Amino acid sequence: MSKELVFGHQNPDTDAIVAAKAFSYYENKMGADTEAVALGEPNEETQFVLDYFDEPALRVITKASDEVDSVMLVDHNEPQQSVSDIANVTVSHVVDHHRISGFDTAQPLFYRAEPLGCCSTVIYKLFQENDIEIPAKLAGLMLSAIISDTLLLKSPTTTETDVAVVKDLAKIADIDYETYGLAMLKAGTNLDSKTEKELIDADAKSFEMAGKTVRVAQINTVDLDDVFKRQAALEAAAKDENASNGYDLFLILATNILDSNSELLVVGNPTEPVEQAFGKTIANNRLSLPGVVSRKKQVVPQLTDAFNA
Amino acid sequence: MSKELVFGHQNPDTDAIVAAKAFSYYENKMGADTEAVALGEPNEETQFVLDYFDEPALRVITKASDEVDSVMLVDHNEPQQSVSDIANVTVSHVVDHHRISGFDTAQPLFYRAEPLGCCSTVIYKLFQENDIEIPAKLAGLMLSAIISDTLLLKSPTTTETDVAVVKDLAKIADIDYETYGLAMLKAGTNLDSKTEKELIDADAKSFEMAGKTVRVAQINTVDLDDVFKRQAALEAAAKDENASNGYDLFLILATNILDSNSELLVVGNPTEPVEQAFGKTIANNRLSLPGVVSRKKQVVPQLTDAFNA
Repeated sequence: MSKELVFGHQNPDTDAIVAAKAFSYYENKMGADTEAVALGEPNEETQFVLDYFDEPALRVITKASDEVDSVMLVDHNEPQQSVSDIANVTVSHVVDHHRISGFDTAQPLFYRAEPLGCCSTVIYKLFQENDIEIPAKLAGLMLSAIISDTLLLKSPTTTETDVAVVKDLAKIADIDYETYGLAMLKAGTNLDSKTEKELIDADAKSFEMAGKTVRVAQINTVDLDDVFKRQAALEAAAKDENASNGYDLFLILATNILDSNSELLVVGNPTEPVEQAFGKTIANNRLSLPGVVSRKKQVVPQLTDAFNA
Repeated sequence: MSKELVFGHQNPDTDAIVAAKAFSYYENKMGADTEAVALGEPNEETQFVLDYFDEPALRVITKASDEVDSVMLVDHNEPQQSVSDIANVTVSHVVDHHRISGFDTAQPLFYRAEPLGCCSTVIYKLFQENDIEIPAKLAGLMLSAIISDTLLLKSPTTTETDVAVVKDLAKIADIDYETYGLAMLKAGTNLDSKTEKELIDADAKSFEMAGKTVRVAQINTVDLDDVFKRQAALEAAAKDENASNGYDLFLILATNILDSNSELLVVGNPTEPVEQAFGKTIANNRLSLPGVVSRKKQVVPQLTDAFNA
């Protein structure tokens, strides 16, 4: 078996980085020869996690086919979220917790997805099933990924399994996950130091919906005013992104992680499916979405259905 | 949780029927409410298996959405191999051992695929991981599915895992799997009683390749002459199928299960990718394929690559 690269999606969040590290560790224990890499630099939250556990960042790649023939994807499957030359390599493994879309292979492969709150929770199950011990430091990283994806187990994507796994990982890592988790989430919400382009690019994913390319960025904050005092500049930045990348519609989901409410900023067209998806009228380019914190569960499926209606 | 249906692909083979039974049993043990059904009547091999273990056939459905909102797929994922109204139901679970193609969901789901010889081998692993006992009769059925898919562990799709699982299931079912397996495979090769249309429809799957619809039928035999003495009539039947179903190309893979050689009969267009796929020239509409027994591993990927070249 020749070497394979393991990586998460573009604009990596904590789970994309940690799941790559965890799955690569697991696969190497199972006899494979893999290296975990990333499709971008760690964001501020992830950097907090890496610093806390004294763990190095991953090597960043922009292409895979010049290094390997075969890759393993974690925390994503959609080609437009993956490495630029994904069409030129074989995908041998996927571990994920998202919908499947636009993902085609010529050969059978290993594909493991479950509708759980975090990819690292799925990987935890692989360790358990195959009796592979999770080192304390890796447990701390995986716990951080679950807290990040589930907003400290408060997102509606959170399952009983995620809760149980966080508690077990906290024991292995010997950490008070609630205190640590809040500090970690806050580290990711330092908005003032960033440009508008940085803010809307840090955690953004593209989706094909009925022939349109829809970009959905999420910005976590502890105060929505910190985002919307910059509304005009955010709109201008999104318009620029649409023009330079061919997106039809740019949606910015600003989420207050303390009270679990969001406000959606809508830039581009068509806007009708957005209004239909949430049964609300856009005013001042915005939609109020109380109780919405999950792009994956509370935004993308509703939009997809409205676009296909 | 409301009731869900579990089913394998159209033109069910032994694995499609058995995997539905086995996964439905497993899911019900895990707390779900499911019923195993089939998208067609059992073929002769499967009927031999059901009779041997005194097991009823599955209820045959042609639509799912009039009964349930949500379904579980086994042994397939490609929409054109699934129930006719697959677009109108939610797929909550997939267990498979094929490539992934044209399979899109709006929501995260449970997806478990491994590049093993048989879907029932993947399901065996689920039983093991979750400490669920396999009853003796179900073990006999699952063993039959693995023998069917791997041609008694001789197909190149066979993995060490398939071999180990067959041996374990044989112990549970208390059966001499080699003697039983050969009798079972021979039961599936009684060709003389069938019309040409029946022969090319019994184990056929459609694939989208670079915008063309390619139908690949497989006919197992213990003597290739039993197939090719009827070549003209088989070609006429395939031509009819192309015309009435809009297939561009109909390929009939006749496989001698005793010596593991195949002969491919080619009806329709384009034929160039077929020649390219195997590096051979078609003569008398036929290609000789010594050592080829697996549609999934030795035919479909090679064709897909040639069509996309």
